[in-house]
Amino acid sequence: MKKTYLMTPGPTPIPPSVLLSMAQPIIHHRTEEFEQVFAEVRQGLKYLFQTEADVLSICSSGTGAMEAAVVNLLSPGDRVITVNGGKFGQRWTQICQSYGVSVDELFVKRGQPVDPDVVASRLANGDRYSAVFTTFSETSTGVAHDIGALAKIVSAYPETVLVVDAITALGVIDIPMDDWRIDVLVTGSQKALMLPPGLAFIALSDKAWGKVENSRLPKYYFDLKKELKMQQKNQSAYTPAISLLIGLREVLKMIREERLECLFLRHKTLAKALREAICALGLDLFAPTSPSDALTAVKVPDGIDGKKLVKHMSQKYGVTIAGGQDELKGNIFRIAHLGYLGHFDLITAVSALEMTLRDLGHPVTLGKGVAAAQDILG
Amino acid sequence: MKKTYLMTPGPTPIPPSVLLSMAQPIIHHRTEEFEQVFAEVRQGLKYLFQTEADVLSICSSGTGAMEAAVVNLLSPGDRVITVNGGKFGQRWTQICQSYGVSVDELFVKRGQPVDPDVVASRLANGDRYSAVFTTFSETSTGVAHDIGALAKIVSAYPETVLVVDAITALGVIDIPMDDWRIDVLVTGSQKALMLPPGLAFIALSDKAWGKVENSRLPKYYFDLKKELKMQQKNQSAYTPAISLLIGLREVLKMIREERLECLFLRHKTLAKALREAICALGLDLFAPTSPSDALTAVKVPDGIDGKKLVKHMSQKYGVTIAGGQDELKGNIFRIAHLGYLGHFDLITAVSALEMTLRDLGHPVTLGKGVAAAQDILG
Repeated sequence: MKKTYLMTPGPTPIPPSVLLSMAQPIIHHRTEEFEQVFAEVRQGLKYLFQTEADVLSICSSGTGAMEAAVVNLLSPGDRVITVNGGKFGQRWTQICQSYGVSVDELFVKRGQPVDPDVVASRLANGDRYSAVFTTFSETSTGVAHDIGALAKIVSAYPETVLVVDAITALGVIDIPMDDWRIDVLVTGSQKALMLPPGLAFIALSDKAWGKVENSRLPKYYFDLKKELKMQQKNQSAYTPAISLLIGLREVLKMIREERLECLFLRHKTLAKALREAICALGLDLFAPTSPSDALTAVKVPDGIDGKKLVKHMSQKYGVTIAGGQDELKGNIFRIAHLGYLGHFDLITAVSALEMTLRDLGHPVTLGKGVAAAQDILG
Repeated sequence: MKKTYLMTPGPTPIPPSVLLSMAQPIIHHRTEEFEQVFAEVRQGLKYLFQTEADVLSICSSGTGAMEAAVVNLLSPGDRVITVNGGKFGQRWTQICQSYGVSVDELFVKRGQPVDPDVVASRLANGDRYSAVFTTFSETSTGVAHDIGALAKIVSAYPETVLVVDAITALGVIDIPMDDWRIDVLVTGSQKALMLPPGLAFIALSDKAWGKVENSRLPKYYFDLKKELKMQQKNQSAYTPAISLLIGLREVLKMIREERLECLFLRHKTLAKALREAICALGLDLFAPTSPSDALTAVKVPDGIDGKKLVKHMSQKYGVTIAGGQDELKGNIFRIAHLGYLGHFDLITAVSALEMTLRDLGHPVTLGKGVAAAQDILG
């Protein structure tokens, strides 16, 4: 027997009650029964997004909703700013460029948050920007950008919208969409929403919907105006991911019961406990300045093979964490602490990490990281 | 207690073993375990598609794979033919037009198949067409077009590819993709594949991949070259719909065990039994000339409210069938017989139909349709 533990930044563990709700016989989507499910989901999503706007559900991975933002807001020849602080920030650049949009990319050193002043001065330089695209929690580096500050800056420009990929941030970090005046907020199902991948979500401010009216980039499957019209009737333009929406209803009930403030506090505590454990073990955080509460990226210590560390932890101890991606491959490892996770999942991860480090010959005092985490969690 | 029965052309009932396979704790996609699942899925899909080509899995509804076909094959200014024999044929026109492609639409009378000679003479008129887009089984009317004949015609044109939406046809009707020289074949998960909606599939011939090389329509999420490269490594470009792929592995095992010839025969028999039952009840088939084996569309008899018929059958008897869509709303009802359905599911549907007709005041001899179906099924 080998028990396994999933500590990756998506997919995240799915609560058994949610798994079972999705294992019920499927229902047809053009029925009152489905419309009732979707009505509850739509309400729950507004609570989670902290918005009065409609939150649209799209059957795709999170990247699909990112593309939806681009093709529904922009027109050929538009100029935008993208914040590239990692693989997922870079994705905004790639999507925009695929559609012939002019991109001014702000490259941010990996492990660092973007400096809001840099965005402010770029916007102030006189060029007309249609949008600023950024990541909230950059999953590839473990950094959380200061979206509150960016929103303050961008909202002063009547023709510029702020588009935020909150795929590993929403449901983890407090993101009051309406209060902060974020124009477009995107997330996916397999992160804090504790579901399998396959659903993405996008909400737009009135300012953003205004841009949608004038957008001339081509779209069909990701046409948000068509989706809005249908989803306001508790239907969708194309066959929805019925079973995932049924699971989502359960998840949103759980989130309402926990309440957002407790949800954010739980994630903050788990994140802090892990960071303390990492420091107690003498390892270095990859993103010490502005770490995300969704996951923690850690520098692989000298003399240790990063890929081997991740593999060993999975094969010997059954604990799946993530390695680095692209240019960070082998240099960092990432332990996630978002979604359906409690104190002892974190203790498990720290414990497995300590044992793995010892197995690989790195000097470690067993239990030292665990104790540091316990101190925060107790 | 009220038992319910799903007889709609998507979603279709999901086998309990498949539901339970998807209710297992989720696994991460960047693991050997997932790659093993995906490798088996890819093999099984080739068997189902009757092709040597790679069958790509996309996280979207079927419409997403249709859009993928359009944006990966074509360039601005291209000219294409679309076969519009119903709502889903018309969708090809809409997608192409959304991307600025020049469309010559062949409108086909609802309930009739396209005349292959009309396509042949349109192609022979001297214009250069990049593609012919057609539906196989038109879900909105219950018609099956003669794709074998169309493939023969189109394959004679070296610059023209035949793109077939087989969303309710694949796994129901024999479609030897390679033998017939179909260039692009598209399907979705929630039809004969007996899964929840959320996955779509697309396979391309070498001729079609040649067009992909030169395509200049914009794309990102639906970029098939990128997907091919990743999926040949048993990975996908973006987070895949992990749980659906795990369910799909089970489904494809079931299909292999049943064998394609038996799968097609089962559907043919169910379809014939239902058509005989409908005729025995004195009702008229909406598509008598070339009916699909996936679903049967029936004209609502005079004096009966079509919407009420569908609603009554669902509310009183728990049997969900589909009404007509768009201009056919209220004029037809559609009973599906594809996927995880056996003889007695069909008997149930016919029986509920008879009882519903009587409840609504339509003269009917109870058991007459059932007997006609039994005669075929026995």
